[in-house]
Amino acid sequence: MLSLEQLKEITRQSDSKIVLLVIDGLGGLPRPETGKTELETAHTPNLAELANKGNCGLTDPVSPGITPGSAPGHLALFGYDPIKFAVGRGILEAMGIDFDLKKGDVAARGNFCTIDSKGLVTDRRAGRIATEQNAELCKKLSKITLEGAQLYVVPVKEHRFLLVFRGEGLSGDASDSDPQQIGVTPLNVVALSPKGKKTAKLANAFAAKAKTALADSHPANMVLLRGFSQHPNLPTMSDIFKLNPAAIAAYPMYRGLAKLVGMKILNTGATIEEEFDTLVRHYAEHDFFFIHVKKTDSTGEDGDFDAKVRALEEIDRLLPKITSLNPDVMIVTGDHSTPAMLKGHSWHPLPLVLYSKWCRADRVREFGETACASGGLGRFPAVEVMPLAMANALKLTKFGA
Amino acid sequence: MLSLEQLKEITRQSDSKIVLLVIDGLGGLPRPETGKTELETAHTPNLAELANKGNCGLTDPVSPGITPGSAPGHLALFGYDPIKFAVGRGILEAMGIDFDLKKGDVAARGNFCTIDSKGLVTDRRAGRIATEQNAELCKKLSKITLEGAQLYVVPVKEHRFLLVFRGEGLSGDASDSDPQQIGVTPLNVVALSPKGKKTAKLANAFAAKAKTALADSHPANMVLLRGFSQHPNLPTMSDIFKLNPAAIAAYPMYRGLAKLVGMKILNTGATIEEEFDTLVRHYAEHDFFFIHVKKTDSTGEDGDFDAKVRALEEIDRLLPKITSLNPDVMIVTGDHSTPAMLKGHSWHPLPLVLYSKWCRADRVREFGETACASGGLGRFPAVEVMPLAMANALKLTKFGA
Repeated sequence: MLSLEQLKEITRQSDSKIVLLVIDGLGGLPRPETGKTELETAHTPNLAELANKGNCGLTDPVSPGITPGSAPGHLALFGYDPIKFAVGRGILEAMGIDFDLKKGDVAARGNFCTIDSKGLVTDRRAGRIATEQNAELCKKLSKITLEGAQLYVVPVKEHRFLLVFRGEGLSGDASDSDPQQIGVTPLNVVALSPKGKKTAKLANAFAAKAKTALADSHPANMVLLRGFSQHPNLPTMSDIFKLNPAAIAAYPMYRGLAKLVGMKILNTGATIEEEFDTLVRHYAEHDFFFIHVKKTDSTGEDGDFDAKVRALEEIDRLLPKITSLNPDVMIVTGDHSTPAMLKGHSWHPLPLVLYSKWCRADRVREFGETACASGGLGRFPAVEVMPLAMANALKLTKFGA
Repeated sequence: MLSLEQLKEITRQSDSKIVLLVIDGLGGLPRPETGKTELETAHTPNLAELANKGNCGLTDPVSPGITPGSAPGHLALFGYDPIKFAVGRGILEAMGIDFDLKKGDVAARGNFCTIDSKGLVTDRRAGRIATEQNAELCKKLSKITLEGAQLYVVPVKEHRFLLVFRGEGLSGDASDSDPQQIGVTPLNVVALSPKGKKTAKLANAFAAKAKTALADSHPANMVLLRGFSQHPNLPTMSDIFKLNPAAIAAYPMYRGLAKLVGMKILNTGATIEEEFDTLVRHYAEHDFFFIHVKKTDSTGEDGDFDAKVRALEEIDRLLPKITSLNPDVMIVTGDHSTPAMLKGHSWHPLPLVLYSKWCRADRVREFGETACASGGLGRFPAVEVMPLAMANALKLTKFGA
């Protein structure tokens, strides 16, 4: 695989347009009664037509057997080696709510949680309190003062908030206080390297003061922190690929990921139709579009096979809004699998279809896991999707003499 | 992937023979009217028989989406990571005309070009002057003297020549003077690292003196230089693979690439039949043969779909000359795709068939891009072809305890 620097040497700007539709959690597992996955169960004639005209394959977001989080899954699709470029959870939260991070800031993901009289966690999400209540509590926590750093506590959604430390000598090398289970106390944050000492100290001081401040706010009477991290300073897609890229994503985290690689974030409504309409409206303005659909992942996480099938059918029904624009390169894939049978992300490689005038169609006639396994693209790492997209858009010159 | 050093640990000499037939630019794109590529259109019963008996797949010369030059395409097939081992254009030219490079020499590819009275390039190839005129002009340029280095100017073909500097303290880290476009002046050569300073200075001095010497030689009244480079000093195939390898290639550049990895170059005529006959004649003398057919690439570059089809049929018709020798391992593939539809090299993975007694045949019954996509070898990087060939020739021992 070429490094980003090597890739940059052979990319060139042109008028051709690339659309990357990411169906979050696309890959699935068959329902035992039918032997068909969610995607194979769904009635998706438009995706089938694309598969018929295009070139199909299966991608591994990281490598075979590895279940990716959202960040590696997306970074790979954007062309960034997800093993080399790690993005912390705290940074993702900050990006997603447009928090203006400064150089050196450390961000963490916070959860309001419930603890009992012994200090043991009884609910890691404080009953998913309303976002309005979250905002009130964040105001309260914002008044906490710490020695050696400024502090920002910003509500995200339901029980989730963003914590940012700003000051000298900070690092993301600090452990989580979130124990990821109930019946135990929140963990003491420890430095994961000498650089992380100050962050760990600040985190523990913050947690102690938060406990006091939230004593009367049951069920949100404590905080759990995880994903201390700093901005990874990735090279931008416009730098590497000479693209003018835009992102359409209703969910904050995916906008955050897109921003990390320098995409312009387009305002959009929350439904799939609104997202697709946003692309149509802005089609003339960019040469690369990342459009993200969340519903397939959330229904998969809920274990709701039928709801995931319906979400896929909704995407398929709306797909002509995009394909009728005739982008030079149209790619449909996902960032990882979320089989309803497993109620969570999984390691299974996921279907991909790429259509361009130059794609060299294969024999795949439907868009599904089994069909794509014998596609012309074979099985390949998701980090190769961008080079393939660029090649098909005729935006790459020759490598080597 | 094992490194060459690791591979070397497990290779062993034996009497078995490997034939690697490289059909330059083999991969193609379908003609819209038929949906069939050049290879799928061609009547190739002998290749089909090989596919039927053998194991098929698709290879990526570099990685998905990357369009390789000839050097990376061939180095990969010879087992050398084309990203790690870069070969400069100048070195390729030198190898191809049997120029006896010494350690430390810097070589560059030269073009005679046409400049107007303002010094702007009006034709980067000087109207493709005759090779005879090129030879005359090179004699003239050979008389140029430079401070700190000897100089060799050797005609190649039409407007192309080889420039070599020989002296102390040289390096290939120097930029091109070829602007790769017309309407501008030739570029000043600059050092790309401190090591390249002397080379850049010599190159600029040479260009200035060449301009004077060629003042009356319109249209060949200036030179453009590119690809300053030194011998990459690759480990040889006999060292790594314990082979006694031979190359049969009518075109200089491919002989040059073969020489880089230590193959013996066999004298051959220019036609495909003469090349195949050369193999037959020398079959007893070597245990590895690289045989290169150019016509498929040049017809592809010309955009001549039918001529490429005919070239493939010619190869197929002559193939029994080789297969009747019953080599232990017979591989047919290409160094990259050259679809007539694109009139140039492309990124598409290309078909490969490997036959040996131990290959484990798959279900592929014909030799074509679509058929090979579902072959038993899957899609894999071309740099793995040599380990596969060696294994099938029973020339590899076990890796690890």
